[in-house]
Amino acid sequence: MENFELFGNTEKAQNFLDSIKSGKFLFSLVMSYTETCEIPGITFAGADKDSIKFTPPADAEYLYYGYCKTIDKIPMTPDGKPTPGLLTKTALESASIPHITINAGSKIPPKLPFIDTGMSFGKNISIQDAMTDSEVSHAVDYGRIVGRSLASLTDCLIVGESIPGGTTTSLAVLRAFGYDAKVSSSIPNNPVELKNQIVTSALKRIDSDHPYSVISKVGDPMIPFVAGMLSSASEVSKVMLAGGTQMTAILAFASKIGFNDENTAIGTTSYITSDESANFKNLISKIADIPAFAIDPGLKNSQFPGLKAFSDGFAKEGVGAGGSIISSMIKTGNNSQKFLELAEKEYRRLFTLQ
Amino acid sequence: MENFELFGNTEKAQNFLDSIKSGKFLFSLVMSYTETCEIPGITFAGADKDSIKFTPPADAEYLYYGYCKTIDKIPMTPDGKPTPGLLTKTALESASIPHITINAGSKIPPKLPFIDTGMSFGKNISIQDAMTDSEVSHAVDYGRIVGRSLASLTDCLIVGESIPGGTTTSLAVLRAFGYDAKVSSSIPNNPVELKNQIVTSALKRIDSDHPYSVISKVGDPMIPFVAGMLSSASEVSKVMLAGGTQMTAILAFASKIGFNDENTAIGTTSYITSDESANFKNLISKIADIPAFAIDPGLKNSQFPGLKAFSDGFAKEGVGAGGSIISSMIKTGNNSQKFLELAEKEYRRLFTLQ
Repeated sequence: MENFELFGNTEKAQNFLDSIKSGKFLFSLVMSYTETCEIPGITFAGADKDSIKFTPPADAEYLYYGYCKTIDKIPMTPDGKPTPGLLTKTALESASIPHITINAGSKIPPKLPFIDTGMSFGKNISIQDAMTDSEVSHAVDYGRIVGRSLASLTDCLIVGESIPGGTTTSLAVLRAFGYDAKVSSSIPNNPVELKNQIVTSALKRIDSDHPYSVISKVGDPMIPFVAGMLSSASEVSKVMLAGGTQMTAILAFASKIGFNDENTAIGTTSYITSDESANFKNLISKIADIPAFAIDPGLKNSQFPGLKAFSDGFAKEGVGAGGSIISSMIKTGNNSQKFLELAEKEYRRLFTLQ
Repeated sequence: MENFELFGNTEKAQNFLDSIKSGKFLFSLVMSYTETCEIPGITFAGADKDSIKFTPPADAEYLYYGYCKTIDKIPMTPDGKPTPGLLTKTALESASIPHITINAGSKIPPKLPFIDTGMSFGKNISIQDAMTDSEVSHAVDYGRIVGRSLASLTDCLIVGESIPGGTTTSLAVLRAFGYDAKVSSSIPNNPVELKNQIVTSALKRIDSDHPYSVISKVGDPMIPFVAGMLSSASEVSKVMLAGGTQMTAILAFASKIGFNDENTAIGTTSYITSDESANFKNLISKIADIPAFAIDPGLKNSQFPGLKAFSDGFAKEGVGAGGSIISSMIKTGNNSQKFLELAEKEYRRLFTLQ
């Protein structure tokens, strides 16, 4: 476990680790969608504009089947760098951690059994409200039900997300709640200017400081749903929010609706915490008194350029990769070197397959 | 536990009980639909013909919320006898057993988060095939995925069903597989003649003894889905099939596709095993070498005619009532007298509510 960097409340970090190391884990992938991702240049989560909406179901299918059904290949960037789901799948399989898919507003449902929530996708926040107040309310309520159910089945519920464009809506939510946030991106040369423009125009529509109203104006469906999950699940089990920027926005909103900070942690990759265009560590401390973990999966040592790219700033995080790797290491005792071996094996399998 | 009647393989019954008594339980409700239920006189699951399709989602909603969202009142017979879901809810709550809803072909989705399978409802087997072979295959595949996922989260997976008209399709499936089955009904004066007519005309369409083909001709979507669940789940955890007639049809089909009989049991009510128009106990022994349990919930002693009616042959079983009561008693040590107290309390709450 020497690979983890601990930050936030480090005393709670040790307690969190101690209490889950002999426990059971359950990974949940929350699929969602915001039309904000259709703004050119905002995301790399998909080979082109028209295929972005297939990324969440394809990520979910890949985790289940080892291949996708909705599209031919696994999600990757235009030049062939794979989804961070590859890291998630490697982690979950190596530790036999069960997982479940939740559709919280994906434009396309996955071709597998999944928890349905009856939620719609979010609108493009640069031009209109993301959703209605009543949709936010529905998302929180259903998130609370799902969170309670899943937490009752495990000792540590890991929550990851797949929502293209989600860093931009998260930035808007963080700013709306008064945080001086700079966020990461799936693109190494983070399109900061473009994101700021979108966020600035979105924030102008805010006319109430009610948290539900803020989310409806500038958020996305994933944020209130996962905040609802956290709110109820953290009363029952440990919860590891697996992700980077999006998890800080969830935490900001969850702080308004209430959650148990003794049972909550964030787990992410070192590619997020070392991103100089973002201020992840500082941000977490300002939002909530919880522990956070970052793992260096060691991909810079990979023989495959597609894996090495993560350490150069591509994708960085997503599909709950960081939190899954951390959980798998807690459960198996594997180190980064062993994880890299397994990730390369999976990469090779995919490459031979396609 | 002196209230249980053990039958089938009684040695395995004791082993099954011993292995789950300190374990965790998870209840799953599989909602489905067959248009066969629309034949007049075939079912009492709903106040009238047009409302039958709301019974599965209403049962699911009642278990979650304690009231229904799709309809105003909880499902009941035309003269006000409540759904057996009342017994299930009482059992699950008394033992804090978590539960999850699965939509495997319900005409109407429930207003709560549920596992979606992309399945369609079954057609009326008296006039046409229930579904296509590829729909049966999809049901089995998705059942296998869901079964594996849920079983990995518990020590004993309880599976109940809500499918109006399901005893008739089950009778057809049992006969098609060569069993001399007589089945129970939700109606005290079991419409045996009508069921036999329907089944006889349905069986004429069978032109292959391939198990998938048999199900597609005369079955319903719930049977192959739950058989798929059983097939994978019984490799991972104990599985208690909670129900009467339908569970024997599932067992007959599951025997064709394979399941682990060391980890499988049926749990039902004594109203099923004492039904003289059916031959439940005998049937189970012929189909598979598994244990079975029957519980007398003691409702004949109820002060409320609506509860006493179960012991007079109304509803008898459904929504996984028997298996849930048995599981709750294993977990809590409650006896029938205590269960009756709790069921009456729930009955009173509902009556005051409405």
